[in-house]
Amino acid sequence: MSLTSPSETLNWLYRGTHEIFPHQPDSNNREENLEQLLKQCDRPLRVKLGIDPTGSDIHLGHSIPFRKLRMFQDAGHTAVVIIGDFTAQIGDPTGKSEVRKQLTPEQVQANAKNYLEQLHPILDFDTPGRLEIRYNSQWLSQLNLAKIQELLATMTVGQMLAKEGFAERFKQENPIFLHEFLYPLMQGYDSVMIDADVELGGTDQKFNIAVGRDLQRHFGKKPQFGLLLPILIGTDGSQKMSKSLNNYVGLKEGPLSMYSKLEKTPDALIKEYFELLTNFSLDTLPENPRDCQKQLAVEIVSQFHGKDAALLAQKTAEELVTQGIGTSTDAVPEYELSQVEFPAKLFYILSASGLCESSGDGRRQLQGGAVRIDGTRVTDPNLIFNTPEELYGKVLQVGKKKFIRLI
Amino acid sequence: MSLTSPSETLNWLYRGTHEIFPHQPDSNNREENLEQLLKQCDRPLRVKLGIDPTGSDIHLGHSIPFRKLRMFQDAGHTAVVIIGDFTAQIGDPTGKSEVRKQLTPEQVQANAKNYLEQLHPILDFDTPGRLEIRYNSQWLSQLNLAKIQELLATMTVGQMLAKEGFAERFKQENPIFLHEFLYPLMQGYDSVMIDADVELGGTDQKFNIAVGRDLQRHFGKKPQFGLLLPILIGTDGSQKMSKSLNNYVGLKEGPLSMYSKLEKTPDALIKEYFELLTNFSLDTLPENPRDCQKQLAVEIVSQFHGKDAALLAQKTAEELVTQGIGTSTDAVPEYELSQVEFPAKLFYILSASGLCESSGDGRRQLQGGAVRIDGTRVTDPNLIFNTPEELYGKVLQVGKKKFIRLI
Repeated sequence: MSLTSPSETLNWLYRGTHEIFPHQPDSNNREENLEQLLKQCDRPLRVKLGIDPTGSDIHLGHSIPFRKLRMFQDAGHTAVVIIGDFTAQIGDPTGKSEVRKQLTPEQVQANAKNYLEQLHPILDFDTPGRLEIRYNSQWLSQLNLAKIQELLATMTVGQMLAKEGFAERFKQENPIFLHEFLYPLMQGYDSVMIDADVELGGTDQKFNIAVGRDLQRHFGKKPQFGLLLPILIGTDGSQKMSKSLNNYVGLKEGPLSMYSKLEKTPDALIKEYFELLTNFSLDTLPENPRDCQKQLAVEIVSQFHGKDAALLAQKTAEELVTQGIGTSTDAVPEYELSQVEFPAKLFYILSASGLCESSGDGRRQLQGGAVRIDGTRVTDPNLIFNTPEELYGKVLQVGKKKFIRLI
Repeated sequence: MSLTSPSETLNWLYRGTHEIFPHQPDSNNREENLEQLLKQCDRPLRVKLGIDPTGSDIHLGHSIPFRKLRMFQDAGHTAVVIIGDFTAQIGDPTGKSEVRKQLTPEQVQANAKNYLEQLHPILDFDTPGRLEIRYNSQWLSQLNLAKIQELLATMTVGQMLAKEGFAERFKQENPIFLHEFLYPLMQGYDSVMIDADVELGGTDQKFNIAVGRDLQRHFGKKPQFGLLLPILIGTDGSQKMSKSLNNYVGLKEGPLSMYSKLEKTPDALIKEYFELLTNFSLDTLPENPRDCQKQLAVEIVSQFHGKDAALLAQKTAEELVTQGIGTSTDAVPEYELSQVEFPAKLFYILSASGLCESSGDGRRQLQGGAVRIDGTRVTDPNLIFNTPEELYGKVLQVGKKKFIRLI
């Protein structure tokens, strides 16, 4: 066990961290602060982070708390990843006229598996004792009315309505359904059940993490610390990163796609991206802004695809620019792989996506050496892909002027 | 089955009834009104009334909805009495510093038994198919979080906070704990589970009964009607009848005790008491106010103790007045039977209560014929009572000037 030694500085703890709470020794509760706890504890701390498995595509914004979680792992502590499968399975019954977003256990399981796979480049899955993956249906499905009443009785309506999100809706007289009050309590009960010492989350999670503290206290346990991380601004430089705003970089994207997006990171965000998404020393950033962008892109792509792939992506991108063709999102149209039935032959995809005029044309272009995937030439006219994952996020190119990004 | 025939007037339905809702045919929901349903239905309706078994002493105020329930029974319908044992057993966990009012299943069972015994003079316990007694723990203890979320999702915070009781507390910023929102939903779920056609309650139950309607609709059932009855004003003529205000007439009280309280019913309440607590025709009330009071007292005492006992109580009370001694609550001091260990000899009670100077004196007074219980002379010096119930609410008298009411 390589716990952080007392003498070691805890710089890793504060990198990019927005807030740690409680941050002052509290004489009433005799609570130490988190730094003190990390220095003095003689056991691995249990550091909680929750996953919502209603979807499975995650982007760099989601990765930030997981990167912090990895830092805790590297300091010898235990990451406890909570899969929120219970909520995903019961769905949100609000609004009878809408379709209930209720997932089967199999769908939830598949989403969780997909989500966890994307975390492999970030978390330490291998060192014994460093990772626990827990499904909260294990305890939430067991709760009866008596227990739920006990949870509800720990909070007042006023406290809930003061919560960011609820406050505005209540003021504007938009309906808040009673079951919405359950979610913070369920998340908080997770902390009770897994004996969390620290919970990580975005700044929007402060209330929920604080509810976890209250519930732990209620059940006679030591309340966790909260460590809040910023919500990442997307590549557009203005709004928070989100798939629906198309200002995101997905963790499943190929190296060229990732690189092309990241090398255009707005100057105002460069430092924050370095701080939150890399371990690169902020004191040694290149002086030239363009070099900064490239360095950032290489650093991040390397984490997911290795240094070689990152440098190849950089080279390909530069060649494309030399050819007068950008690879930014707006320059490269996207084609959705969900339109294709897999297994699929590449010549069919070339045709279906409109890059080639027909399947026959696709075959000929392949044989003629005009087709590249993420800059790498492919020539086998019968090349088959078994799953969309093999192509997701990659740039498919025919000749020098025709590109699509596969999504 | 003697269902109310179409031609029969439904006067019994409206006697003392404050409100029936919905009271208009609702074209959206194609709901009939209750009178129409009663006239047309070809099956016994299921008429719900709930009991809270956290206590067991009930008074005339509590009896009002049960009297209406009896009218439904007599018209051929089925009374479904819900014992709210679930809530009583889980208690109210609000306020950790206070003692939890949590009852054991045995206590709840004992309270419910005691409560039901007091209803024997009111309800028809004997005719087959006229009474169902159900414990709501049977279904509420089975609810899991998914189901509870479904119940909560049927209502908004705004709807709950508009509820009488919550509204003022919220406005005054007094804490409302989240679990308090569960109670109306639990009561409403009872209606779902027992397929209630009608629910009876005090005027303060309108919201809860309406929640039952919503939940029945949510679960694809026909919503119940609500029938609301007034909250009885106590014998002081100003505040609602309550044990703690000592303006009550308990159903376990002896005939003399009941009579003495009721013969002083304030004039302003006489008509309401006749209407709500007797079946006496309101068109034939005695003209003289004093005669009205006596008639009322005899009518009510007769229901619980029979006509003979009521008339004897009247005679005893009049003799006492002739002797210059009132029997009203303020004139007769009370003595709590909980201070005595049962089985108990009467001479001991005479001594312990201070009516006699010693046990020996008590024995002598008995032998000398000076002791009366509710006006009836008792002379056996070794008379033993096995339980406090045998004496509860009775007036114990020694000679002509010394009285206590046993409670």
